[in-house]
Amino acid sequence: MSSPKGLVYLIGAGPGDPGLITVRGLECLQQAEVVIYDRLASPRLLNSVPPGAERIYVGKGPDCHTLKQEEINQLLIKKALEGKVVARLKGGDPFVFGRGGEEAEALVEAGINFEVVPGITSAIAVPAYAGIPVTHRSYTSTLAIVTGHEDPLKENSSIPWPHLTAVGTIIFLMGMENLPKIVQQLVQHGRDPHTPIALIRWGTRP
Amino acid sequence: MSSPKGLVYLIGAGPGDPGLITVRGLECLQQAEVVIYDRLASPRLLNSVPPGAERIYVGKGPDCHTLKQEEINQLLIKKALEGKVVARLKGGDPFVFGRGGEEAEALVEAGINFEVVPGITSAIAVPAYAGIPVTHRSYTSTLAIVTGHEDPLKENSSIPWPHLTAVGTIIFLMGMENLPKIVQQLVQHGRDPHTPIALIRWGTRP
Repeated sequence: MSSPKGLVYLIGAGPGDPGLITVRGLECLQQAEVVIYDRLASPRLLNSVPPGAERIYVGKGPDCHTLKQEEINQLLIKKALEGKVVARLKGGDPFVFGRGGEEAEALVEAGINFEVVPGITSAIAVPAYAGIPVTHRSYTSTLAIVTGHEDPLKENSSIPWPHLTAVGTIIFLMGMENLPKIVQQLVQHGRDPHTPIALIRWGTRP
Repeated sequence: MSSPKGLVYLIGAGPGDPGLITVRGLECLQQAEVVIYDRLASPRLLNSVPPGAERIYVGKGPDCHTLKQEEINQLLIKKALEGKVVARLKGGDPFVFGRGGEEAEALVEAGINFEVVPGITSAIAVPAYAGIPVTHRSYTSTLAIVTGHEDPLKENSSIPWPHLTAVGTIIFLMGMENLPKIVQQLVQHGRDPHTPIALIRWGTRP
């Protein structure tokens, strides 16, 4: 039952510390013929890729997208159709604001075999490394993870601010740029201005 | 700077598939002299523990707690004070409704050295394995993770039901027993009764 089509692994690299990739994720990297990787994936993980493999950087910075998402989808499909074993290495977890859902959909439509290898999401691990459990029996039984990318003052915000303030722990991903607006929205909708907050950048890294 | 005190690793085993433990978590298991493990941690991971290590099962079933949480905390401290390298292996992520926060606090109070090794939380990986991304740019920018253990009809529920219904994706952990009440609460507080749901038990396992 051989097929000319390759295979794509959608791998979560975890939050930064290369030891936080999964055992399965590392196995997949070691089999890769092509690696397509992001800015947030630890560069040290590339040491586990076979020396002959092709390495393609598609990282997105705050102000520069090397490749658009649609182009990344097409690149995955193209390499797989060449019969290659493709590792798509993404920071954190591919399915928590990682657009892994869109890549998986594109692969389904193109009839490409793929496997999802979840990663440790920075939303949870980064506070943990900093000594902050995101849930605690005595303090909070709810946890929300919210994109920090969206402008909180835009007219049709998809973030339900009035409701969000009732959640115990709220984690904003990539929220540094919008921080003042996020705080403003939370307080305006009733969050106690004395609520403790933590700001963490490049968590779990040296 | 040697110390008579041992060391505790608080390790997340991931959602079930033993390949979903982290590389660092596996390294720690391989160094363990004592392993204290839960019901939800994959038994296959115990194969990575050195043959001479002591193995202590403290698993909690739905109706039987082998050891109370306070007793588990004391056990960790006792073994560490004997100078042992202790691996505390917990299902999922220790800090997402895993009571890792309480264990870490007990270790801090007892002056025991410990390291947190996050795990893949089943809240995110189990839907991912089932083909369901928990966030998607076109559909949802918020995600809530909620304990399913709490009786949703109890008078002083810590779950903010009226607010929760506004969140895009809601994940209940360990919610099978309370399922009818959870659905009742969500619909009563305005969630569309036609909202798609998925029920997954023992996700990522064979």
